[in-house]
Amino acid sequence: MLFRKAARQDVPSIVKLLANDKLGQLRENDTDPLPEAYYNAFEAINKDPNQELIVVESETGDLLGTLQLSFIQYLTYRGGIRAQIEAVRIREDVRGEGIGQKMIEWAIERARERKAHTVQLTTDKQRPDALRFYEKLGFIASHEGMKLHF
Amino acid sequence: MLFRKAARQDVPSIVKLLANDKLGQLRENDTDPLPEAYYNAFEAINKDPNQELIVVESETGDLLGTLQLSFIQYLTYRGGIRAQIEAVRIREDVRGEGIGQKMIEWAIERARERKAHTVQLTTDKQRPDALRFYEKLGFIASHEGMKLHF
Repeated sequence: MLFRKAARQDVPSIVKLLANDKLGQLRENDTDPLPEAYYNAFEAINKDPNQELIVVESETGDLLGTLQLSFIQYLTYRGGIRAQIEAVRIREDVRGEGIGQKMIEWAIERARERKAHTVQLTTDKQRPDALRFYEKLGFIASHEGMKLHF
Repeated sequence: MLFRKAARQDVPSIVKLLANDKLGQLRENDTDPLPEAYYNAFEAINKDPNQELIVVESETGDLLGTLQLSFIQYLTYRGGIRAQIEAVRIREDVRGEGIGQKMIEWAIERARERKAHTVQLTTDKQRPDALRFYEKLGFIASHEGMKLHF
């Protein structure tokens, strides 16, 4: 497995992964051609040194999964940085093979490299399997994740 | 009440607010002079157009509270931006006067201005009052907030 930063030409494949999901299908639009907003979003992410949109490839170059890692500077924790994981998706036909675990372990290692003091994420309470998955990897569900959608 | 972006000279007062808290006192260090790491963190926040470290002042120029608002670009939600609220603190002697509510309402309005589709935050399960406070303001505790501290 290869981890690398996503390139512009990966955007349609990533959006396909985001859309192929119980919750994602309600909010994404993976038409061809893709809405320009996705490319604009990619460019904003790509030029920001605190954002890493990651794709995971097989040895033969197939896209297996994606995640986004954001490094957020706060004054709290003595001026510390937090790494935040979001938009984790694994291609449907390769789920259950341990790819997700390798992806999160990779993200944790990357967070250490960038001197984050904490790795954090929120997971929808409608995904109980995800909760158990993250707990096994050492995450503690110490917080309520609250959202206000416009 | 006046809302404005924090300036470098506000950093000691902000850290004092962060440290004067059940959880914050365990992780902050509001010595005089303040550890340089806080100023370095401030500079990183201040130069980042996606970060807004906010202070709230009384009409007489007294610091009443602080919060940090981060605007995070994702591919999800059709290339949408989320506003994330963190490090909310209100000066101990002015709590219970509705300042917190005004601060969060301000942050929600600011998130709308910047075209975020969602405002999100996590709140420690050790703060049940905070959970009810945010629920009253329209936030839904739909997610588990998971942390892995190094």
